[in-house]
Amino acid sequence: MPNELEPVAGIHSLANGALREQYRLAGFGGRVGWGERPAVLVIDMARAWVDPSEQLGSDLDAVANEISRVLGVGRAIPIPVFFTTMAYDPQSEIGEVLKRKTPHCLTMTRGSANVALIGELERRQGEALIEKPHASAFFGTNLLSILVGQSIDTVVIVGCSTSGCIRSTCESAFNYGMHAVVPRQAVGDRSPSAHETALFDIDNRFADVCEIGDVLAHLEQMRDSKGAVR
Amino acid sequence: MPNELEPVAGIHSLANGALREQYRLAGFGGRVGWGERPAVLVIDMARAWVDPSEQLGSDLDAVANEISRVLGVGRAIPIPVFFTTMAYDPQSEIGEVLKRKTPHCLTMTRGSANVALIGELERRQGEALIEKPHASAFFGTNLLSILVGQSIDTVVIVGCSTSGCIRSTCESAFNYGMHAVVPRQAVGDRSPSAHETALFDIDNRFADVCEIGDVLAHLEQMRDSKGAVR
Amino acid sequence: MPNELEPVAGIHSLANGALREQYRLAGFGGRVGWGERPAVLVIDMARAWVDPSEQLGSDLDAVANEISRVLGVGRAIPIPVFFTTMAYDPQSEIGEVLKRKTPHCLTMTRGSANVALIGELERRQGEALIEKPHASAFFGTNLLSILVGQSIDTVVIVGCSTSGCIRSTCESAFNYGMHAVVPRQAVGDRSPSAHETALFDIDNRFADVCEIGDVLAHLEQMRDSKGAVR
Amino acid sequence: MPNELEPVAGIHSLANGALREQYRLAGFGGRVGWGERPAVLVIDMARAWVDPSEQLGSDLDAVANEISRVLGVGRAIPIPVFFTTMAYDPQSEIGEVLKRKTPHCLTMTRGSANVALIGELERRQGEALIEKPHASAFFGTNLLSILVGQSIDTVVIVGCSTSGCIRSTCESAFNYGMHAVVPRQAVGDRSPSAHETALFDIDNRFADVCEIGDVLAHLEQMRDSKGAVR
Repeated sequence: MPNELEPVAGIHSLANGALREQYRLAGFGGRVGWGERPAVLVIDMARAWVDPSEQLGSDLDAVANEISRVLGVGRAIPIPVFFTTMAYDPQSEIGEVLKRKTPHCLTMTRGSANVALIGELERRQGEALIEKPHASAFFGTNLLSILVGQSIDTVVIVGCSTSGCIRSTCESAFNYGMHAVVPRQAVGDRSPSAHETALFDIDNRFADVCEIGDVLAHLEQMRDSKGAVR
Repeated sequence: MPNELEPVAGIHSLANGALREQYRLAGFGGRVGWGERPAVLVIDMARAWVDPSEQLGSDLDAVANEISRVLGVGRAIPIPVFFTTMAYDPQSEIGEVLKRKTPHCLTMTRGSANVALIGELERRQGEALIEKPHASAFFGTNLLSILVGQSIDTVVIVGCSTSGCIRSTCESAFNYGMHAVVPRQAVGDRSPSAHETALFDIDNRFADVCEIGDVLAHLEQMRDSKGAVR
Repeated sequence: MPNELEPVAGIHSLANGALREQYRLAGFGGRVGWGERPAVLVIDMARAWVDPSEQLGSDLDAVANEISRVLGVGRAIPIPVFFTTMAYDPQSEIGEVLKRKTPHCLTMTRGSANVALIGELERRQGEALIEKPHASAFFGTNLLSILVGQSIDTVVIVGCSTSGCIRSTCESAFNYGMHAVVPRQAVGDRSPSAHETALFDIDNRFADVCEIGDVLAHLEQMRDSKGAVR
Repeated sequence: MPNELEPVAGIHSLANGALREQYRLAGFGGRVGWGERPAVLVIDMARAWVDPSEQLGSDLDAVANEISRVLGVGRAIPIPVFFTTMAYDPQSEIGEVLKRKTPHCLTMTRGSANVALIGELERRQGEALIEKPHASAFFGTNLLSILVGQSIDTVVIVGCSTSGCIRSTCESAFNYGMHAVVPRQAVGDRSPSAHETALFDIDNRFADVCEIGDVLAHLEQMRDSKGAVR
């Protein structure tokens, strides 16, 4: 991946009060808040995305550290944790449209090192790994049924890339009527401006984009009052 | 809707060669091209979106004119035409998450003038009207089955808003393995910068964003060689 | 609809202990029980199915009476109530496969008297009416999102026809991880043997088939201890 | 699995003219016929279902032989071939509803010998293996997108069990507007009566149940006139 060429975009920044006000008047950007039974979804923290020498990769070490903090508290409650990666049999599962528009999919071979989760997040027994064929973790997978089957009503969405799989997963969660929370320091993107633009969009349309401190505080409260958690 | 506050964003413009090259190297933004059996999807050309005095509305007269040109050629071939609008029974079909994040949905009452298609596009008998509950025309509707049942492999997506329902519908079409073509002059958005950003994103990830002249030329060729069209 | 030609089938009857035991040994037919937040789904209680002079119709008066009992208690709690019917624009929404296999769909015109709910069930404001294009109430509709958005985890499925739309709706509910309860006296079918066969199958694969007295007793308990119900 | 206890049911047999006529008058059971681009779906031909000593197993050797004949001609054309099996991480992917209703799912561990395809069908490179979480091969998987992406409009459905995964897969194919063909000798079930009942139901509601000779003849004609096949 070449060096990032673009500056952090100001116009779409979360700090941009005028644009946010415009969206608010148009009936976007309300606060949804937490439901009662959250789970953590860790999106695509595999080598293809976190190794800057890879075609799709960029340096997401800081993001991985923030995710570890979320996982630490989530596992202590405990609440369910799900990981995703992308994986295909390139020969039989990738059609012409997919191959032509996004040829990087041809490198995402099921079982290859490229799509293996990074070790830092220490996925544990009982934490599902969902192989997803598209950006949204809900599309073409069994994730929704697993969540509904556990009465999960809130997903804390972390990982990468903000403008791709994070945004799409937030949209699906919203469409299915779930609360979705995005701790902004725990999601990353190869492009800082795409990251900022996507966070603004996600926050206005699909999910609550939050400071990670606020997300951790909510989960810590759940951890410390386990009696109230089913 | 207040006046548009933001300038046309330069960084995400389709003309921005450096960023496009960056995405290309990352394996995005290939050309998909047309399949064999196209249909036209006209997204949300109803009063709520095209009347600037409405909460979500903006002036889309020029977009409506371009859509009419696409419909004119499409109906002459003929290829199937589908319209969408949004519609709810606000009392029973809108949950807490939807209501809090996007309170404008409360004004989209099924059967109200607000969500009725504009007359200019002259929807005809045999052109389905799909009431959709979310941004993508495919989510929570029967559209996919209707398209598959007619062996449609290509959708020409027009209407509004580029950064919302157009983008989401393009993503779904892509996910389902369909060719998707967006004539850029036939889609519109209340925000010029969101429009440009979304077109860049759509073109890199989901659909071919094209000049309307090229789209019309392809359809006119189909019209003029009907023998080749099933 | 011609008179019913067939006897009540014995081999698939719920009372058939030997076959049930065979299924049990194969790992089918467990008891799921109730979740915490039920809703009632009333499937296709419209003229096309309940008027014996109609092509698909049969006498379901007794079934309608039982449904009224369920609705009475459900509304008193209250828990959400949903109705479905089938409805198409025959010209644009029915493909070749559908038309050829089940030509009766051509009579299910949206807005016609044929697909209007029967008055006896007294659908109220705030009780959604879902127009579904296929047997399952979940397929090609927004029902799942509405249920998830209300944290519904249990569906009490009543209506008709047991071997068609009831069975398919039970399968979808099961697939999505929901508890599904079928009070057997509140579902009906034009064929007594298809009814019995389907109940056996539903009970073994998807949902708990129960006596209506047990279903009413559970709901009455909810009604009488409202403090415990969110 | 205990010995089969039940006789072949007469009432639902395909040969039962009176019942078939009753369904025909009710607008069921039309012939759909073939589309233009078929694929073969081989459902769940893995040890758990074909080894009579397994909990869900029965003797399906004859069925496997018939499937081999279909695969032989299909591969010679060639048309795409897809295999399915079921597979879970029992600890994280099986919810309470699934576990209680069908406890046999707990034995379907991803990667175990239990869910590995039988060698006799000689799955080849380029033939996708879809791990499905539920009865229908389309539910919770990416199969639909793969088929649409290849413009497949017809699925030849073979394997087991007729009354479970075959029936459900046929229903999904029908719901998505696809032609579905079931060569009756190439599907099997642990229960002869459930097999016959399901074939009758499939043929009336979802797919054309055919003699295998007719299916082979159609495919052989495609093989012998390759010029006409894309």
